This record gives sequence, structure tokens and C-alpha cells, in this order.
Amino acid sequence: MSRTRVHNLFVSLDGYAAGEHVTLEQPIGDAGSLFRRFDGRVIHGIDNAPDAPITVDRALTSTWAQGIGAEIMGRRKFGPQTGAWPEDGWQGWWGDEPPFRTPVFVLTHHPRASLEFANGTTFHFVDGSPAEVLQRARDAAQGGDVRIGGGPSTVRQFLEADLIDFLHLAIVPVVLGRGTSPWAGLTDIQDRFDIESVSAPSGLVHQLWNRRRG
Amino acid sequence: MSRTRVHNLFVSLDGYAAGEHVTLEQPIGDAGSLFRRFDGRVIHGIDNAPDAPITVDRALTSTWAQGIGAEIMGRRKFGPQTGAWPEDGWQGWWGDEPPFRTPVFVLTHHPRASLEFANGTTFHFVDGSPAEVLQRARDAAQGGDVRIGGGPSTVRQFLEADLIDFLHLAIVPVVLGRGTSPWAGLTDIQDRFDIESVSAPSGLVHQLWNRRRG
Repeated sequence: MSRTRVHNLFVSLDGYAAGEHVTLEQPIGDAGSLFRRFDGRVIHGIDNAPDAPITVDRALTSTWAQGIGAEIMGRRKFGPQTGAWPEDGWQGWWGDEPPFRTPVFVLTHHPRASLEFANGTTFHFVDGSPAEVLQRARDAAQGGDVRIGGGPSTVRQFLEADLIDFLHLAIVPVVLGRGTSPWAGLTDIQDRFDIESVSAPSGLVHQLWNRRRG
Repeated sequence: MSRTRVHNLFVSLDGYAAGEHVTLEQPIGDAGSLFRRFDGRVIHGIDNAPDAPITVDRALTSTWAQGIGAEIMGRRKFGPQTGAWPEDGWQGWWGDEPPFRTPVFVLTHHPRASLEFANGTTFHFVDGSPAEVLQRARDAAQGGDVRIGGGPSTVRQFLEADLIDFLHLAIVPVVLGRGTSPWAGLTDIQDRFDIESVSAPSGLVHQLWNRRRG
């Protein structure tokens, strides 16, 4: 049974998971303090940075890619542009080695040809409801799970449609004062999940939300 | 820099990590209560059991195989026999799919031909000091880390020789009263490590010991 998973969603105490004002220089907007306490997120396993200590934070964030067959991301995660795609050669923030290594479905109302990379990452630019795009991603994942890669507005849409089976939150002890919230407009979604919390020595609190069964 | 790592060492409150009386029927001896609280150790990533919830325990135990290029294990982990190897066709506890998928060096004073499996696991039967066997495993690991796979006496030998760079303990709230201890004869080894502790909702306490630098 293929699941829909969210990983490494870093959220401030006031509920923001990204800043406003995403620009070429500031991919996560003005919310850098979300990642100042722990910037070692390891997304392809702890062997990603072989010399770094294996900490609680690294071990938990290393589940990001395990069992994943496709990702869905919002357009703002792919790039800072808005409107019709300009002919600027933009291929995402990640250079020649996007870390995804699976098909990635970028939500956009504006058509664009797919982009394929040698390391297994292919970006498809798609329009549709969360359920429609999830079905396409599920088909492409070939039995693997589908990751909702963010940003926060995209996570919010999929939570609202009750399509999320697993959510890994990292609650960061910072107050941003402004930003984009994955919780906006949602109420009592926690009731659908079994939730574990652990405090890491870094000061982060990790929460693992697994959809309740039965 | 290739490291020497211990993962998923489940230890009772009185310091035992396996029972006595290892037999064909009881691979971990009479210490089953060490694993009653959490028996979902996932060793090749959380996709190992795709339908199970992703819990703190599962996420932390899933680091077992990441970045590992070879394992060293004690003879008792491989089988219950003692003395010269009988011609009984014994190929380990694991059937046709030993979960290691790397070269595995089994410590024994008794020579035996290597055993190769289709899934990448090869057992080599070797004699030598911890440092000597580690050097052989390091060469076979091709840049990967070497895991000391247990049992507890084997972990103890490598700790005594100060060859361990990383140790993942799971402290289990049980009192065994007897068994095999990884700590026997060791004093103040903790001073060589930076140690993180987290309590999991299951009641396990996970500790990550990383060798102190500089």
C-alpha cells in the first residue's frame, strides 16, 4: 500500500514553515532561522555526509528518501518565478544533481516541457487537483511512496484534502512573526493521526504523525 | 574516513545485551524480553516493512545499513555450534537472504571456507586480533564504514581495543538478572564519546555515542 509522506517540515513556534519574499537569493524567504539550529538535514541516508556525527536529528531526517518513488512539489519550491515560464533556462535550484532521483511533479498552471537529469530526477510540470496529481505521482512511483515535498502551502493543500498518511515535523524554538503556514485554515487534523514526540539534544522537537488505522 | 560502528545494541537495565544458553531454538539465548517492547527493528531503511508506521524506534534503527561496507560478527551470532565446524550444512540463521548484503567476517579460531550468497552477502571465517580483523574488513568495505554486528562479547572486545567510533544503544526497561554484557571489564569508556539520549514513546531510551574529536 503506497503512502503519501511529508518529511523534514521545519515549523516555528508560531506555525510558519517558510518565510515570505522568496527570491533567487533567498530560496526559503526570510526564514533562515528555521535552519540555523540544525542545518545538517540528510536526505539520502546518513552516508550522505560520512564524516559528520550520527545525531538524533541526522538519523530522523535521513528517512526522507527511504521507500520514496516520486515527489510532488509546489512551484515556489522549484523556483522564484511567477506567471508563464520565462525563457531563462531555469532548471531549479539544484544544478546538475537534483537530490530527488525520482520523478518530481511540479504544481503549476503554466505548461512547460519535462526536464530530465542523468541522476534519475525528472521534473514534470502539471496542473490539477491534489487528488489528480497524486494519482499521477502514484503511478510514476511504481509501488513506492509519494513524498509531498513542500513548500508549506502545498503541504496544506494535501492535508486539507486528507491525502497525507505520514508527516515528520521538526518544531524549531524560534518565533518568526510572519511567513507561510502549513496549518492555515485547518482545524483538528491531528485527530486522524497517532503522534509521537521526541526532544532532540539540539533543541528541536521531532513529531512523527502516522495516519490512524482501522 | 571510514568508521567502525555498532547499531541496535539492545541493553537491559542491568547491562546485558543477550541471554546465556544460545541454542538453535533461541538465537539470542533466554533474553527475549529485550525485544518484546519493540520488535520492528528495520535494518535496510523504513521501506523494509512498508506498511508499518514510521516511529521514532523504526527511524533510529533504520540507520543500521546506511553507508556500511562490511560487518564483523562473533561466532555465536553466526550459529550455536562450538569447536571445529561440523559438517552439518549450517549457513547461518538467515536462510537464502542474509540481511547483510556485504562481506561479513565471522570471528572463529576454526578455519572454514567462505560462503557466498546471491544477494551480496559473503561470510569469511577469520582468526586474529580485533585490529587485524578490522583492517581486513576495512579493505573489503571499499570506503564504506565497518559495522561490528555483535554479539555483546564481540562489541566488548572492540570497545576494549578502542576501535569503536559510533555506538547506537537502545536501553530497554527490563531486568534480565543474567546474560552477556558488552560492558564487562570496561571502565569509563564513555569519556571518549559525545553522547545524545532520547526517550522514545515505546519506553526505549536511544543513545547515540559519537567518538569525540580533536
